[in-house]
Amino acid sequence: MSVNLKGNILVTGTNRGIGLELVKQLAEKTGPETQIYASCRDPEGTRAEALRNVANRFPGKITPIKFDTADEDSISAAFQAVSQKLGAAGLNLLINNAAINKPSAPGSLSATRKQDMMEVYETNVAGPFILTKVFLPLLQKAANTRDEGDDMSCRRSAIINMSTVFASVKKCPETFHMAQMYPYRTSKAALNMLTCCQAEDFRRHGILVTAIHPGWVQTEMGGEQAPLMPQDSVAGMLRVMSTLSNKHSGLLLDWEGNTIPW
Amino acid sequence: MSVNLKGNILVTGTNRGIGLELVKQLAEKTGPETQIYASCRDPEGTRAEALRNVANRFPGKITPIKFDTADEDSISAAFQAVSQKLGAAGLNLLINNAAINKPSAPGSLSATRKQDMMEVYETNVAGPFILTKVFLPLLQKAANTRDEGDDMSCRRSAIINMSTVFASVKKCPETFHMAQMYPYRTSKAALNMLTCCQAEDFRRHGILVTAIHPGWVQTEMGGEQAPLMPQDSVAGMLRVMSTLSNKHSGLLLDWEGNTIPW
Repeated sequence: MSVNLKGNILVTGTNRGIGLELVKQLAEKTGPETQIYASCRDPEGTRAEALRNVANRFPGKITPIKFDTADEDSISAAFQAVSQKLGAAGLNLLINNAAINKPSAPGSLSATRKQDMMEVYETNVAGPFILTKVFLPLLQKAANTRDEGDDMSCRRSAIINMSTVFASVKKCPETFHMAQMYPYRTSKAALNMLTCCQAEDFRRHGILVTAIHPGWVQTEMGGEQAPLMPQDSVAGMLRVMSTLSNKHSGLLLDWEGNTIPW
Repeated sequence: MSVNLKGNILVTGTNRGIGLELVKQLAEKTGPETQIYASCRDPEGTRAEALRNVANRFPGKITPIKFDTADEDSISAAFQAVSQKLGAAGLNLLINNAAINKPSAPGSLSATRKQDMMEVYETNVAGPFILTKVFLPLLQKAANTRDEGDDMSCRRSAIINMSTVFASVKKCPETFHMAQMYPYRTSKAALNMLTCCQAEDFRRHGILVTAIHPGWVQTEMGGEQAPLMPQDSVAGMLRVMSTLSNKHSGLLLDWEGNTIPW
């Protein structure tokens, strides 16, 4: 099954889990002109072997990019590298997927230190904030080409922030005792706010911004008891991304396209 | 007008604005057994002169306490000092009021650095998180005395987190262009989530947790064009706190008691 996505796509946190699966399926399901920039902290390291294997299966289509969303200098260096590769073209889709969860689930109050709050916020919110700010000129460039018309879409120019149902304050009373995870929940609630701010701010540029909940997925973060396989979650999310338009900017949707309340 | 509040009350960020007014009105409107612990970064400094004046007007009722919500060691030291003063009694009401806003309004994307995101989160979320964790045994002690019955209330044991309508993701589309303030908005959305997590977590202890929006108030942070005076905002919030019960735990209310959506 193909998807209605194309152009230049940057995905963060791609050495494992959902990020790796996003790169794999984007490579499989998009046309030959699509270029995928796959970032992680250490694309040459042992923890990125699976990413290198996927990149080798699609020669010239996937470019691993090195940066850490918590490190501003590394983001600037990556911006230079991607800009050079893109030449006159812009960035059509930025998927802010990189995230951490500390302490590991269930993450009770007593197990959580102030440092966990700060580190998780840095990676999950301040990282996407500064990454998006740095790459904004490339997203504006793509939005301005208007090859795909005046409506907003993930083909024209879009930002997808990987959120979670655990970020829904409204749903907190029903989800809290499953996994307390104070740092993760507070950071992702902040990411939802960031999504809505960016959606309001970038609407004038024609850049769509949507938060997506991937479901509870069998990954290193999601654990073995999760009911959803990464393949199915990512297939669903790419279908959703293919259909996004003006009315979806500023929303939180799940991998099946259902709106989740804030 | 008196309020239905009493016992041992700790308010943070009390050297100016809403925090200072909270201390003043609590001292005026509560009975002689009420003890108010008023924290700020430097109670001996020039910026705390107004607080010292208020404390002098109510001898023995207001105890200035020194700590910075961003500094964990100073919070532990304050806990020791307050514990000693309280003796066998617990803490009935903790008002997490201390907060910062950087860069100053309107706080556009281009004016905002990653460091602003981190500093604002540290003071507005990680600070209240760790402060509440440290003081939890004293809140539990107050909840256990049950002098005020089995229902939750601000007289038995409660945490009030000072939030804002700008923390409402749902209302972001209508408020964003008034004041963009990315770091402040994202931090306060996270504080709303923290409020809901604490409400779920501490319900078993009998501790009420509610977030309150003070309105748009004429303070150093709110600016001169704000329509509401600190006196009126604080009078309203103390009326609201006086009436809180089980059903209000985990909500965001404004200074008039209206529920604000997440």
